Amino acid sequence: MVIVIKSNTDIKRIEEIAKDIEKKGVKTKLTIGENKTIIGLIGDTKRVSKDYIMSNLEVEDILKVESPYKLVSRMMKEEDSIIEIKGVRIGAKDQVIVMAGPCSVESREQIIDIAKEVKKQGANILRGGAFKPRTSPYSFQGLKEEGLKYLKEASNLTNMPMVTELMSVDDLEVVSKYADIIQIGARNMQNFALLKAVGKTNKPVLLKRGMSATIEEFLMAAEYIMSQGNENVILCERGIRTFETYLRNTLDLAVVPAIKELSHLPIIIDPSHATGRWNMVEPLSKAAVAIGADGLMIEVHNDPKNALSDGAQSLKYKNFSNLMKSINKIKEII
Amino acid sequence: MVIVIKSNTDIKRIEEIAKDIEKKGVKTKLTIGENKTIIGLIGDTKRVSKDYIMSNLEVEDILKVESPYKLVSRMMKEEDSIIEIKGVRIGAKDQVIVMAGPCSVESREQIIDIAKEVKKQGANILRGGAFKPRTSPYSFQGLKEEGLKYLKEASNLTNMPMVTELMSVDDLEVVSKYADIIQIGARNMQNFALLKAVGKTNKPVLLKRGMSATIEEFLMAAEYIMSQGNENVILCERGIRTFETYLRNTLDLAVVPAIKELSHLPIIIDPSHATGRWNMVEPLSKAAVAIGADGLMIEVHNDPKNALSDGAQSLKYKNFSNLMKSINKIKEII
Amino acid sequence: MVIVIKSNTDIKRIEEIAKDIEKKGVKTKLTIGENKTIIGLIGDTKRVSKDYIMSNLEVEDILKVESPYKLVSRMMKEEDSIIEIKGVRIGAKDQVIVMAGPCSVESREQIIDIAKEVKKQGANILRGGAFKPRTSPYSFQGLKEEGLKYLKEASNLTNMPMVTELMSVDDLEVVSKYADIIQIGARNMQNFALLKAVGKTNKPVLLKRGMSATIEEFLMAAEYIMSQGNENVILCERGIRTFETYLRNTLDLAVVPAIKELSHLPIIIDPSHATGRWNMVEPLSKAAVAIGADGLMIEVHNDPKNALSDGAQSLKYKNFSNLMKSINKIKEII
Amino acid sequence: MVIVIKSNTDIKRIEEIAKDIEKKGVKTKLTIGENKTIIGLIGDTKRVSKDYIMSNLEVEDILKVESPYKLVSRMMKEEDSIIEIKGVRIGAKDQVIVMAGPCSVESREQIIDIAKEVKKQGANILRGGAFKPRTSPYSFQGLKEEGLKYLKEASNLTNMPMVTELMSVDDLEVVSKYADIIQIGARNMQNFALLKAVGKTNKPVLLKRGMSATIEEFLMAAEYIMSQGNENVILCERGIRTFETYLRNTLDLAVVPAIKELSHLPIIIDPSHATGRWNMVEPLSKAAVAIGADGLMIEVHNDPKNALSDGAQSLKYKNFSNLMKSINKIKEII
Repeated sequence: MVIVIKSNTDIKRIEEIAKDIEKKGVKTKLTIGENKTIIGLIGDTKRVSKDYIMSNLEVEDILKVESPYKLVSRMMKEEDSIIEIKGVRIGAKDQVIVMAGPCSVESREQIIDIAKEVKKQGANILRGGAFKPRTSPYSFQGLKEEGLKYLKEASNLTNMPMVTELMSVDDLEVVSKYADIIQIGARNMQNFALLKAVGKTNKPVLLKRGMSATIEEFLMAAEYIMSQGNENVILCERGIRTFETYLRNTLDLAVVPAIKELSHLPIIIDPSHATGRWNMVEPLSKAAVAIGADGLMIEVHNDPKNALSDGAQSLKYKNFSNLMKSINKIKEII
Repeated sequence: MVIVIKSNTDIKRIEEIAKDIEKKGVKTKLTIGENKTIIGLIGDTKRVSKDYIMSNLEVEDILKVESPYKLVSRMMKEEDSIIEIKGVRIGAKDQVIVMAGPCSVESREQIIDIAKEVKKQGANILRGGAFKPRTSPYSFQGLKEEGLKYLKEASNLTNMPMVTELMSVDDLEVVSKYADIIQIGARNMQNFALLKAVGKTNKPVLLKRGMSATIEEFLMAAEYIMSQGNENVILCERGIRTFETYLRNTLDLAVVPAIKELSHLPIIIDPSHATGRWNMVEPLSKAAVAIGADGLMIEVHNDPKNALSDGAQSLKYKNFSNLMKSINKIKEII
Repeated sequence: MVIVIKSNTDIKRIEEIAKDIEKKGVKTKLTIGENKTIIGLIGDTKRVSKDYIMSNLEVEDILKVESPYKLVSRMMKEEDSIIEIKGVRIGAKDQVIVMAGPCSVESREQIIDIAKEVKKQGANILRGGAFKPRTSPYSFQGLKEEGLKYLKEASNLTNMPMVTELMSVDDLEVVSKYADIIQIGARNMQNFALLKAVGKTNKPVLLKRGMSATIEEFLMAAEYIMSQGNENVILCERGIRTFETYLRNTLDLAVVPAIKELSHLPIIIDPSHATGRWNMVEPLSKAAVAIGADGLMIEVHNDPKNALSDGAQSLKYKNFSNLMKSINKIKEII
Repeated sequence: MVIVIKSNTDIKRIEEIAKDIEKKGVKTKLTIGENKTIIGLIGDTKRVSKDYIMSNLEVEDILKVESPYKLVSRMMKEEDSIIEIKGVRIGAKDQVIVMAGPCSVESREQIIDIAKEVKKQGANILRGGAFKPRTSPYSFQGLKEEGLKYLKEASNLTNMPMVTELMSVDDLEVVSKYADIIQIGARNMQNFALLKAVGKTNKPVLLKRGMSATIEEFLMAAEYIMSQGNENVILCERGIRTFETYLRNTLDLAVVPAIKELSHLPIIIDPSHATGRWNMVEPLSKAAVAIGADGLMIEVHNDPKNALSDGAQSLKYKNFSNLMKSINKIKEII
């Protein structure tokens, strides 16, 4: 932590501030510049709150030198984390794991049919929503436990692990009973009660980036989960909210190399929610694989036209098959 | 709902699409323009999903004619809603309700001292956090039920209703036991499980706008609460996330007249969280009163320098006293 | 300037980096922390480019300690700058200067009629566009010099100084001939050739904030003008681009106290362009006055329905009269 | 254009509004819904301004059915436009054109050395700045005509066409004399005087997207150029400004398939400016090629550490060589 002192502050006053801060148990070091003087803090800077420092009117700014996350940090663990679920390894070098399935589970037949198809095309993990976060209270809210059962059956039949969203601590038990991976949705990325709850399980967690979350906040949300003991966190970028509205959100692909720099956790891309339009899914998937994402999460539906949610962004079987061929080609050379 | 058809689409194909849509139980009406043809939908358009329509490749766009919210809408209820809590009327004409108190309750003495002081200066409602949403799992997380007890005691002593944040459905019972108004924080604005849960109580709810929530999403979150039967919703703008980082967030004051246009619900302003800096609180409070906000939520602390959270944005007693004088002057002429 | 070194870097290597930087003519000072080491730079840090430092792989980050602007800075000049134009003083304490007039000059009669009306209601400065920046090349582009002549005539008749936009260095001579204040539009805020050109005149310049310009970039654009010798710069906030689209832009009113903190230049608010809707202009004007803006820029039209540009955001005479009454009341108490 | 009428409006009043609009020379058609009535406009809707319609208080909203651009539109010209410059074809199927060179020309030796190197590695076009748009007036502003001469010499020596930025109409003549492609920078994307000026030449124009420009505004800027007769427009995405600040900007790669849908113009990607960090350039370049960009613009420097501008985002020769190998592999399979 570096404290910038306002120009024209008397040196005695600066020394007083430094002494006052030292009482909290850290050391300080002054660097007196021509225009500005700075105070560097040495030791466990968490002992001194930003507010404590800012309450001195002579302080102009506080510059952070250390990142606030620890367990998720690449500095803490140099090698890539690999999350293994029933033989599927997420985060392993040269692997691009494909999670595919419908936005919502709508019936037993639907999810089994889709599961078989995506498996045939090479998907590794089945996705499907049973508890659905919907902007409107009047929209279809999911089949709940019934949906989980169908998902489990489809998962068993096709021998693919299954990921599904958890929206509330109340449903943790029932979702854990069926799911192999628990998804935390973008709108709940800072639902700290929920993060702590899944952090206390040992289920792998797929954590989606909030629509306006910075990379630091995204990693801090993962830190919440890890701080409770659960190290199996998979990050997922699904588009951020910007001024551009031609597509639903702006997919921030640079987050892949950025996260690889900062953290050891795997990161996958969800181009379906990012764009909201099925014909954007294949081009963005190719880009995601080329840039080094550890996986993709793709919405596939047997009948997008009559889907109960998010049909406009779901691929038909034919298009999913084309997508798998495209990304396989790119995978080979990456 | 208006469907825009791509140029050069055969008229027979357009008629087919219209017929197909009519099967869902709505009527359609074609308007054939020189370049574009549109299909207007008449009747209960919720029967036809956007996805169903978009699955026709000839459809270029779907334009929404109706807003998705109902109960919160000014169209549903023309007169302003007034939420009355122990004699304090939020939303009443010519009233500016001031909610004041510390970010976090830190001790019995602290909250009682602050409550007495803000009451003396003219505050109407006591605020204070017992369950704290913190970006870092390593930060102070609040005194929990102990904090609620102190808050209640301070509230009783000063005869002011009390508002405090609820972070999880699990804590609803304990928070309801003490609080007069339940606050839903910005990060939980789309925690739909939580919205439904408070919607099933009859406690007034203070709903904060999410950092990247559009006005429509903000109103839809309120609709979630109202759809469960609870009509006592107070909206609160606390700054949105933009590219500008000089202050913590960008306070969107235009939301006050915008909300007044669209909804009958009261709306208050939180300048403390919006800016993160105490010296910005008074100027923005004056602007909020001038533009017609129904209230303010202000952080006040007896010792900001040693606050356990958000000290940099908290007013000292002296500054709060000045603020109250300033806004009282503006209130008189508005 | 403070250089943050990556953890685990050998101290010898850090000393090498420091020595290398000292060759550029600055001094360095190391602060060795428990996790991180920082190098503070002392002296004229402009001699060392950020790139020069970043090219060392051991450098994690560079923290800026000094702001890049000088002439516009409050540190350079403590007292508020007052720009005086034909007796109108912009930036003077307790003054709220109102600039009013149509978006575009459409005819001699129109501008004279509007000028007389706004003068009668208390406006101080006449505004009107002769060169119009339009998103579409097919939209009305302004009356050009003819418009300037009409503006000048209306300005003389009503004894109000006149402000009009300059879009290109080519038009500087003709615009300077007629205008009392030259406006640089939001889209040209970083048109550096234009900034330099007006900086070489001694005409007052009204500089609008770019739609996605940070406060620092805004001040740097003013610095461009001042660096050429012209000290008469008036800043104008007109809304920034965010994800919210209910209104055209998001008016960032906090910029008023923020600019007052950082700079000695006056700042005015344009609520007409910020919102794009006439019924939002009065509430935002009241807020702007309450927060301490030095002035307002308001679009007024004799016949908004038939305006050649921006009619939806223009006030009718009756509404402008109401606005003037409202803000006068607030002015009295501020 | 579709006009949405407020609920509860009397049908007679709606008919009056429709009749009033018909006077402007368009036809109208009413669609009376259960809640809302809409008026569809048929014919040349440009005759009726949005303001004219909005001035009726009964109008709730106006929905655009047609896009405002014409010449740039895919509807106007179905096949891809190919811009050919001295044998280099930008926009041709299966081609990825690489423009490479330093941010600024610094000396004759520097630009010749870099030109030879990038040519050797497979670049097609030489880039380099002689007139530099810098945020600070105190930063290096470019070598101006001297720089253009060196660029031309390097271009001739290596037999590569050359692209360089034009910042002001005043410099059009001198820049045209040397450059093969004129670049319009992001900050000047809505400098309409400059767009018109280059539109009157027949030089190919590389138009960079403004930092907060929507796709529609980006295309409208291209429309400005084309409306003056110059059809040789190359679009370039270079990152947009969002709340995320880990990298300089957020590269919006989805713009590639989006532009391909809406327009026939070629689009290239500039990952150097988008990220501001050299180690992000290669991963984003791979993604850009995978998603179907027509080209890349890459900053390369012989000595990034001592570059006079933007060294942190410039590749060394070795890294550029690696990048070329990577993208060539992806090109083969796309």
